[in-house]
Amino acid sequence: MIKTPKGFSIAVAEAGIKYAGRTDMALIYSENIADLAATYTSNKVKAAPVIMNMVRTRKGKAHAVLINSGNANACTAEQGMQDARQMASQLADALKINDESVFVCSTGVIGVKMPMGRIKKGIISLADNIGKAGVEDAAKAIMTTDTFPKTISRSINVEGTKGTIVGIAKGAGMIEPNMATMLCFILTDLAIENKSLKAAFSEAVEMSFNRITVDGDQSTSDTAMVLANGAANNEPLMWGSPDFDKFKAALTEITYELSHMIVKDGEGATKVIEVRVTGARSEKHALKAARAIANSLLFKTAMYGEDPNWGRILAVLGRADIPLSEEKVSIKFGNVMIVQDGLDTGKRKAAEKVLSNDEVVVTVDLASGLAEAKILTCDITENYIKINAEYTT
Amino acid sequence: MIKTPKGFSIAVAEAGIKYAGRTDMALIYSENIADLAATYTSNKVKAAPVIMNMVRTRKGKAHAVLINSGNANACTAEQGMQDARQMASQLADALKINDESVFVCSTGVIGVKMPMGRIKKGIISLADNIGKAGVEDAAKAIMTTDTFPKTISRSINVEGTKGTIVGIAKGAGMIEPNMATMLCFILTDLAIENKSLKAAFSEAVEMSFNRITVDGDQSTSDTAMVLANGAANNEPLMWGSPDFDKFKAALTEITYELSHMIVKDGEGATKVIEVRVTGARSEKHALKAARAIANSLLFKTAMYGEDPNWGRILAVLGRADIPLSEEKVSIKFGNVMIVQDGLDTGKRKAAEKVLSNDEVVVTVDLASGLAEAKILTCDITENYIKINAEYTT
Repeated sequence: MIKTPKGFSIAVAEAGIKYAGRTDMALIYSENIADLAATYTSNKVKAAPVIMNMVRTRKGKAHAVLINSGNANACTAEQGMQDARQMASQLADALKINDESVFVCSTGVIGVKMPMGRIKKGIISLADNIGKAGVEDAAKAIMTTDTFPKTISRSINVEGTKGTIVGIAKGAGMIEPNMATMLCFILTDLAIENKSLKAAFSEAVEMSFNRITVDGDQSTSDTAMVLANGAANNEPLMWGSPDFDKFKAALTEITYELSHMIVKDGEGATKVIEVRVTGARSEKHALKAARAIANSLLFKTAMYGEDPNWGRILAVLGRADIPLSEEKVSIKFGNVMIVQDGLDTGKRKAAEKVLSNDEVVVTVDLASGLAEAKILTCDITENYIKINAEYTT
Repeated sequence: MIKTPKGFSIAVAEAGIKYAGRTDMALIYSENIADLAATYTSNKVKAAPVIMNMVRTRKGKAHAVLINSGNANACTAEQGMQDARQMASQLADALKINDESVFVCSTGVIGVKMPMGRIKKGIISLADNIGKAGVEDAAKAIMTTDTFPKTISRSINVEGTKGTIVGIAKGAGMIEPNMATMLCFILTDLAIENKSLKAAFSEAVEMSFNRITVDGDQSTSDTAMVLANGAANNEPLMWGSPDFDKFKAALTEITYELSHMIVKDGEGATKVIEVRVTGARSEKHALKAARAIANSLLFKTAMYGEDPNWGRILAVLGRADIPLSEEKVSIKFGNVMIVQDGLDTGKRKAAEKVLSNDEVVVTVDLASGLAEAKILTCDITENYIKINAEYTT
């Protein structure tokens, strides 16, 4: 069991928003108001609570986060904004904290009005049961198409005291505007100077949640936040200090592991695939190429079929809008080089063996420079189609 | 049966390149050297014959087109170039025509050397049987994952003589670097002034083959060409004349109908979907939005599930990199308005009925300008995954 970091209290409730017989609301409460860093979806269509949170994030402080599954409160216009603000103020009243320090995250169906009666009862239940639930309970309450709850914990020593960093996430991709929104909450009892926290989180998110893809679609509700409440009583860690570097390393590891879990739980997926592009002229080119490969349906179906069909990779590179010398490209599945200088090496059998694993690394060397980048993705299967064709009906 | 236009002769052969018991080579021969306009894949990785054809296209003349299925002669480096040139010169020798006026189109497996022994026998057989096959035979010989041959014919009257325009295509998408390359050959016995032919073909292709998508992937071999041999003995038609406009209208209709057939035959597809975006500030924005929707996996799975899940469309618009006022958007499935001013209209049942048809028009009105564009696409099903996961093995 993962221990809740000091000074945080968690509660969950069954509000019956959409699902029966399971929890669908969670509360993360910090005794002291916590320092906050957060990033939100870049989709121009944003769910109402995301719009509200973005404004509140400017202050860099959070006292409580209220999360529900079953309804995204997206594409709900002015009514949705009112509902999001009301959820925050109802919780603030119940906990006797400042309304503006409450954040709301909703994930689920789009375009449907929030059932505010049930939500209100849920909020009262959360306030009544504060501290009675743990990290795993919260991870379960916020699941939608997820097949397993996603949590992780790391400890680091700072000035002789132990600091704990815990991550909670949901999402079966960054993918599903309706359900599989990516949400991530990181809680630490360490004190972190606010600007340093923001900078470290921004870097960690860029190398993790921004480098995964399941199907190339993007949610209207994606949210990642870190709360640092200082309950460990350390001197606030500042960018550049050795202790801060320890924190930053742990934070980066946590976001990477959570993003790996999300890809692993990609709807219908059977494999996690790391696409590495090396030898690019710039990181931008490397990233563009890796993302294009990772999002190619033909690449993803080949991975599912455990088929070292490298022609598909080369064809994606050709349309990826990067400088390309076909005759220089080499491609490896695991350690097996299937293409060298743009030509087949004949190692099909060995490559097939690599592709039979649950985790596969595909390395594409453009041999045109020194930059590289990687993207985590998954294969695509008949089940992805089934899950998404049958969802709202 | 479609009649071969005057002055053209067709032959097919069974060369056993990859398939057994079916034709896999076709020859289109024009008695007089024909005027030619052609467009090729914009993929940077191009199959060897495409590279050869592009150079030859500059002269604007074609005497014969040699086509094979089963092997794309792509990612085959210098050997591939030699093989493509040799195929052209073997055919030129057999037909006693100029080598440079022969075009070669290959579709099939990538990265595998052409079986030149079998190809040579096929070429001899084609030359021996010239004129013994028809338009449908050629359409069958060039099929790969296609489930039906694609042909169309139109006649127009020009100066009292009948001119015929015939189209032959293959492709189950623009999509499959391995097999489902799009190839299109249009033959007409009308004389068309060369520059006018190029301009008309370029417009026709832009409004048809460039406006379809099956899975967003792009082949290394895509080719569309039109040959006009003047066997109808008309005065060459010039851009701007009423007769030229008749020709242009027929050409545009032919390319549109062929592209519709390709989408209909999209791998595993059950529906053809026309995505119309209206009310955009510019055609570029309209096209960008329509293409993003048409390529969205979540949109395509919803269409397959006959689910009027409009939230997915709005979420795609939000990431489509176009100016967007969510509160102005309306969305129609057929004539049923499911979203008005960004909000659900509650007409779910009626929308579901529309989506149960084989052909669906989805109209998204951005209400921000006067420009519009449309893209033809298809739904995505478990069969697409199956076909593409199991292909090379």
